[in-house]
Amino acid sequence: METGGATALEAAATPNLDRLAQEGTTGQTIPILPGVTPGSGPAHLALFGYDPLKYKVGRGVLEATGVGMQVTKWDVAARGNFCTLDKDGLITDRRAGRLPSEVARPLVDRLDSIEVPNYTFEIRHLRDYRFALVARGEGLEPDLSDTDPQQVGLAPLEVVPVGQQSQTSAEVFNRWIADSHPVLAEEPQANGLTLRGFSTNPELPQFGPRYGLNAACIAVYPMYRGAAKLVGMEILEFEGDGPAEEFSALGPRWEEFDFAFIHIKATDSRGEDGDFAGKAAVIEEVDRQLGRLMDLEPAVLAVTGDHSTPARMRAHSWHPVPLLLWAPDTVRPDNSQDFGERTCALGGLGTFPAVSLMGLLLAHAGRLNKFGA
Amino acid sequence: METGGATALEAAATPNLDRLAQEGTTGQTIPILPGVTPGSGPAHLALFGYDPLKYKVGRGVLEATGVGMQVTKWDVAARGNFCTLDKDGLITDRRAGRLPSEVARPLVDRLDSIEVPNYTFEIRHLRDYRFALVARGEGLEPDLSDTDPQQVGLAPLEVVPVGQQSQTSAEVFNRWIADSHPVLAEEPQANGLTLRGFSTNPELPQFGPRYGLNAACIAVYPMYRGAAKLVGMEILEFEGDGPAEEFSALGPRWEEFDFAFIHIKATDSRGEDGDFAGKAAVIEEVDRQLGRLMDLEPAVLAVTGDHSTPARMRAHSWHPVPLLLWAPDTVRPDNSQDFGERTCALGGLGTFPAVSLMGLLLAHAGRLNKFGA
Repeated sequence: METGGATALEAAATPNLDRLAQEGTTGQTIPILPGVTPGSGPAHLALFGYDPLKYKVGRGVLEATGVGMQVTKWDVAARGNFCTLDKDGLITDRRAGRLPSEVARPLVDRLDSIEVPNYTFEIRHLRDYRFALVARGEGLEPDLSDTDPQQVGLAPLEVVPVGQQSQTSAEVFNRWIADSHPVLAEEPQANGLTLRGFSTNPELPQFGPRYGLNAACIAVYPMYRGAAKLVGMEILEFEGDGPAEEFSALGPRWEEFDFAFIHIKATDSRGEDGDFAGKAAVIEEVDRQLGRLMDLEPAVLAVTGDHSTPARMRAHSWHPVPLLLWAPDTVRPDNSQDFGERTCALGGLGTFPAVSLMGLLLAHAGRLNKFGA
Repeated sequence: METGGATALEAAATPNLDRLAQEGTTGQTIPILPGVTPGSGPAHLALFGYDPLKYKVGRGVLEATGVGMQVTKWDVAARGNFCTLDKDGLITDRRAGRLPSEVARPLVDRLDSIEVPNYTFEIRHLRDYRFALVARGEGLEPDLSDTDPQQVGLAPLEVVPVGQQSQTSAEVFNRWIADSHPVLAEEPQANGLTLRGFSTNPELPQFGPRYGLNAACIAVYPMYRGAAKLVGMEILEFEGDGPAEEFSALGPRWEEFDFAFIHIKATDSRGEDGDFAGKAAVIEEVDRQLGRLMDLEPAVLAVTGDHSTPARMRAHSWHPVPLLLWAPDTVRPDNSQDFGERTCALGGLGTFPAVSLMGLLLAHAGRLNKFGA
């Protein structure tokens, strides 16, 4: 459907975004490096202006932080999945049949009772078959291998120390996993679990002092809330999970902030599902709801993604990411007549690293000083 | 002829390349840095994904390796030219009247008899007035100045040590040059020689382990074969030297490899000759023969140059290099309707460093893992 034809963004009817593109300027960003497909963690760090090759952030700390757990640099966090094991202990379903939250939640409560001497574990349910686990205690290090073998027909792996100092951590997590077996043994679907993305708090430089911005985050999924929180944004709470609810959530709080990061998950999800029409529909919904944001009269608005997720690939990709930058007082307009990949490839901002976007936003907001005399 | 008008690539009729551009995407690469005109050695290293500012490779080792000589990191290689000297020893022709190979070859054989105590010299004829020379023995260092003064009316220069440790090397090469004088004294055209590009094996990281690719090289000229061999590609042998023979040479061997570098020399040569029409004709011939390559059904095809060689400049140049990237399963198409400089400047890949090309090729072949969670 995208082969030579329109992309989902191009196919979607987006009169409001097109008008912003006409008034503003476009370009395309490279999330990490040409050809490199990013995970959402490093891709968001780049959008926030943090070089993702310098600042590393793991899945565990992102999701644990995003769901409201405290992870200090002495703690180790992991992302967990329930899985289904056969009688030989081999994985038959890596997501336990996409176990629903109402089944997973009481299991998480039961796992919360596991005790490992001298260490404390905190576990919290995320969504469906997913949970976050944080270990606290002496001498924990995050350099540990995943236990998810990434395919069915294999048993969950042991936690193996990757770094010189993470022997203790591996033993502590393996002990917790061993103790989880009797808790889950009788479950029909979720009779096993895997852990991955062992990581600690990277203590990133904070957004506020770095840019002189008081920043808010509006996002549904823990991972994106976690990324925002790790750089010091305030996570706003709201009901619902669509663009209308997300955009509406900012209004009552906007006076308190001078920057807001709003994350729309469904464009990525529909891309991963291979659902071209569904992705275009989400984009059209964003376009319809955009007035709720524009009513707040931002000085600068950027509309972009942390990476491409082409429906035909059903996955994140390395392709350059379209960017729309609107700033009525300061933008230099270009020839852009709509918001789409082909237009952005010809946009006035050119093709540039995503890590440079924050500088452009600050500049268009009149918040950067002149460099040199 | 190019002033404001078409470039040779644009003027050439290339229906097959144009179709690939429509199906694929385009962009332009910067070989080294904006404004920097590269030699073919560093420009090829960049195309192969090796930062040419970090990895240095000299002309001597490129040509010696390319003609099949072994150059270890203990050896020093140089590129040699026969030249014509007047009775005062001043150069009257830096290429000895473009001495033909049949005259040069026996001279090279006679030079092979020169003996320098404690050192061994190996000499091999390249083409026409050119040869490669490799010195082996204790304490040799490559930091030596060229003896070619780069203009007529001057005598060949002494070899001068440039580095702290290359005094011995300079003496050894100067001794060899002194011993060459009686060998060549009676020659009517080739009564002198110059040496340049003193260099050793830089022991580059190897292409295979670096990219997980088993790579073949198809090239006619020693220098390009040398560049490919120094990064560990296998040099394929074949008869003839046109695009038809080069493309045909890959077919019978393609199953053994998952990457092939095919070098077309004549586009560069015609550019250096100032032969606009000849350059366009070579490009048209490449286009006509392209089916031989496409029949092998590559997953990814890149068509580009290591640098520009505008006929009106009769020389390499710093201009961005047009790039066509075709990959039916993974490319995101752009507006490109043909393959030419103006189109590529507006292509979806943007303008980027040539050293990033390998990452893009690997990405489009599905051979890169995701970066981060």
